[in-house]
Amino acid sequence: MSTAPKTISDLAAHVGGRAQGDGDVLIHRVADLESAGAGEIAYVEDEKFFEAAHKSKASCVIVPEGSDVRTPCRIEVKKPKLAFALIAEILHPPKTRAPEIHSSSVIATNASIGKDVFIGAFVCVGENSVIGEGTQIRAGAKIGDGVGVGKHCVIHPNVFLEDGVTIGDRVVLHAGVVIGTDGFGYVRGDMSYHKFPQIGTVVIEDDVELGANTCVDRAALGRTRVGRGTKIDNMVHVGHNCDIGERVIIAAQTGISGSVTIEDDCVIGGQVGFGDHIRVQSGAVIGSKAGILPGKIVRPGVWWGIPIQPLDDYKRLNAHVARVPQMRGELKEIEARLAQLEKDRDQ
Amino acid sequence: MSTAPKTISDLAAHVGGRAQGDGDVLIHRVADLESAGAGEIAYVEDEKFFEAAHKSKASCVIVPEGSDVRTPCRIEVKKPKLAFALIAEILHPPKTRAPEIHSSSVIATNASIGKDVFIGAFVCVGENSVIGEGTQIRAGAKIGDGVGVGKHCVIHPNVFLEDGVTIGDRVVLHAGVVIGTDGFGYVRGDMSYHKFPQIGTVVIEDDVELGANTCVDRAALGRTRVGRGTKIDNMVHVGHNCDIGERVIIAAQTGISGSVTIEDDCVIGGQVGFGDHIRVQSGAVIGSKAGILPGKIVRPGVWWGIPIQPLDDYKRLNAHVARVPQMRGELKEIEARLAQLEKDRDQ
Amino acid sequence: MSTAPKTISDLAAHVGGRAQGDGDVLIHRVADLESAGAGEIAYVEDEKFFEAAHKSKASCVIVPEGSDVRTPCRIEVKKPKLAFALIAEILHPPKTRAPEIHSSSVIATNASIGKDVFIGAFVCVGENSVIGEGTQIRAGAKIGDGVGVGKHCVIHPNVFLEDGVTIGDRVVLHAGVVIGTDGFGYVRGDMSYHKFPQIGTVVIEDDVELGANTCVDRAALGRTRVGRGTKIDNMVHVGHNCDIGERVIIAAQTGISGSVTIEDDCVIGGQVGFGDHIRVQSGAVIGSKAGILPGKIVRPGVWWGIPIQPLDDYKRLNAHVARVPQMRGELKEIEARLAQLEKDRDQ
Repeated sequence: MSTAPKTISDLAAHVGGRAQGDGDVLIHRVADLESAGAGEIAYVEDEKFFEAAHKSKASCVIVPEGSDVRTPCRIEVKKPKLAFALIAEILHPPKTRAPEIHSSSVIATNASIGKDVFIGAFVCVGENSVIGEGTQIRAGAKIGDGVGVGKHCVIHPNVFLEDGVTIGDRVVLHAGVVIGTDGFGYVRGDMSYHKFPQIGTVVIEDDVELGANTCVDRAALGRTRVGRGTKIDNMVHVGHNCDIGERVIIAAQTGISGSVTIEDDCVIGGQVGFGDHIRVQSGAVIGSKAGILPGKIVRPGVWWGIPIQPLDDYKRLNAHVARVPQMRGELKEIEARLAQLEKDRDQ
Repeated sequence: MSTAPKTISDLAAHVGGRAQGDGDVLIHRVADLESAGAGEIAYVEDEKFFEAAHKSKASCVIVPEGSDVRTPCRIEVKKPKLAFALIAEILHPPKTRAPEIHSSSVIATNASIGKDVFIGAFVCVGENSVIGEGTQIRAGAKIGDGVGVGKHCVIHPNVFLEDGVTIGDRVVLHAGVVIGTDGFGYVRGDMSYHKFPQIGTVVIEDDVELGANTCVDRAALGRTRVGRGTKIDNMVHVGHNCDIGERVIIAAQTGISGSVTIEDDCVIGGQVGFGDHIRVQSGAVIGSKAGILPGKIVRPGVWWGIPIQPLDDYKRLNAHVARVPQMRGELKEIEARLAQLEKDRDQ
Repeated sequence: MSTAPKTISDLAAHVGGRAQGDGDVLIHRVADLESAGAGEIAYVEDEKFFEAAHKSKASCVIVPEGSDVRTPCRIEVKKPKLAFALIAEILHPPKTRAPEIHSSSVIATNASIGKDVFIGAFVCVGENSVIGEGTQIRAGAKIGDGVGVGKHCVIHPNVFLEDGVTIGDRVVLHAGVVIGTDGFGYVRGDMSYHKFPQIGTVVIEDDVELGANTCVDRAALGRTRVGRGTKIDNMVHVGHNCDIGERVIIAAQTGISGSVTIEDDCVIGGQVGFGDHIRVQSGAVIGSKAGILPGKIVRPGVWWGIPIQPLDDYKRLNAHVARVPQMRGELKEIEARLAQLEKDRDQ
């Protein structure tokens, strides 16, 4: 989706940058250096693309302040990629659906629907649920009873919010997200399993975005939390009673067992597996496909492997291990020399 | 959801335990030791929480028979955690929706709908399908043709059951579960793949629970089975022709290739990967993130790693491998001493 | 689903094979050697099942040309398994629903719906979308605005196609598939993340099949592509800007980060993890659970492990590593002999 074009001067002002060249040129869209043409703005940040920036046919290029990039029309700014994202936010705002409550939707009479809400076809909103102003609930989403959804959220098709969960403001839940189903906890009886009570709830704070088909389980007792500004990719599993902090990044298909705490500003790769009761301290970075044993405390730094180690240790150990075949050869050679020495001694 | 409160005496009788203190106190809810207050019951089983039990403000604590825990009001029982789960089952029974067939649902005229069934909005039930007494089918679930669903099941929103699958009694299918889609089998032709026939079916036995967005594929020929009382977490993949036994536990994001047999009472961690045609023998335990090669027979015991090994072997080998850097140092030192000896000899 | 029975002669002609025995016998269904009976056809390709083929009660067995299998009624052909798949295609064609636009569906007035299209209950088709001739869109699927769906596709229940994506002909999208949601790209600001623009699109080419709950993200800029004839299993994640070639096979739960290129005719196992900007060259085979570092170029051949290595290297290194405990013993013994030599020298 695109909105009205903006002048380069306006865009430069928006990102606190400095326009060079004709500031009145109108920009309609963002694009990458290679494909960009008239009316489009691109960016360059990494030096290895400076040449591509010079060749680009973009009407304007966002370039690093103080760099050598001298395209005829440019915005100079400290962080070009960030500026590019900020400019894209205004040139390509997310689609806003005009307020409507589709005639096919099934909304409990005691649900509270805010101003300017969009509710698409085949949506259900249960009893006592509250939908905040400006929120968009797209076709086929199912909202249970006693659910609170904040303002200006986008709830994409076929999302399911189970009874009693709470969603903050400006939250984006992509298609197929499931929030608030029972956690996975059972107690073994003689010849069957009994469900450990899963009667807690889930709180998703402001500005969170959850990827398609991601699942966040309700707490056994208490609550599962995803903190403000945290961004989670597709098909991530967040177990019961997890406490995910603010501005955490979690890539696709990572699985987080019950009662894991991930503090603010951590970055977690894809397909990572967490045992239960882990605490990841603020600022830690965990590489894709890592595995972390239950109960572990993960300190700040970069971690890698199964089970996780500091990245440097992981690399060093792997380099040593790669030389094991050679070591076996050396060992054999040493043994032969030793045998010779023994033979010489014994003669 | 909560029901009428129960006296401590009644609860003790229900779990075969012994009430100590005022047995007439009414209990409304379960809670954990820390947060519990008046009208709530908590439990303690692990000795390290005995002190927390003494400090708890719960109206009643379930404690291990013969232990030192002497809270003023308690239920003594052999397995406190199990008793807690059993008590939660009666204090917090799963929500039961009053029988209803929502006017928006689309139900084939020759489908058979049992007594006291709940069918929510936007549900489809196909031709010749049978829904057992007391089953609840929530909004947006889609049931194909010729599907059999047993009694007292709960089918959560947006579940899809493909034509011809069979679901037992008291089965719980969480939101987004997909059962009976084609297995993943193709035969390579000259310049394209042809689908190997996927015309079998799926049988889910009584008391099974499947987590959100979990997928169970239909058999190529024959059937895929999930046995009675088995509990499967979110986003697990069960391939065509798998035969999962009774009381098996499978944690989130595990993937099971075609024709895998998992016998009764196995426990499988999260993110485990199974090659095809594996047989896991009854009672085996497989750690999270393990990988198992096709055709493998996994004997009872605890298994770990990629490819799996007995846990003890895995630990021992890892401990040895961790010393490889040191071994390289030792090797170097030995080589130096050897060279010295050779020099001494040759002088 | 089954269609009219066919004679063995007809089936033999269909697969370019040679019928031996009574070619007029009617075949109703495919089956496996063990369970097959009258009216059923089975196949045998692997020599270890030749004896089972002789014991089979199938009315006809498809056998390898020039083999010793001499069942009384058989079709001799070069590739029996392929012939079996081709025969199953005509005996068990996928269910075709009679053309219908269900009265509950919500279809934009300016959407274009082709001839003989089936649209089930609770389906949405957005503005300016085009649905090709003979395509079936099952209950609960949601098609956004400006979506192009080709001819003779099957879009299973609860699929979601976001605005602007393009789907070729004869594409099969299993239940819960999500195509075209935002890619996972953010730029860190001071105290929050900003979305990197995700305004590209997705192109799914002809004859692609995507498994249940699989997600394909839209490109940031440009397009994400899944090439003609590619088959993808359940719960696979395809990140933004990926370019998956033709006839690629990808097993369940594999995760592909942004900007990965997989060339034609690759085979990728399950639970594989791809870092971003990888290129997998045509014909490469990557084993299940492998992990590939960002930026890697994967040449043709068979690859395994985390990070990936050629399969032979992986096996060799693992064999060496398994002997590390023994090496430590040898090292200790050598040290003792060395010390003895030194002692002898110094005396």
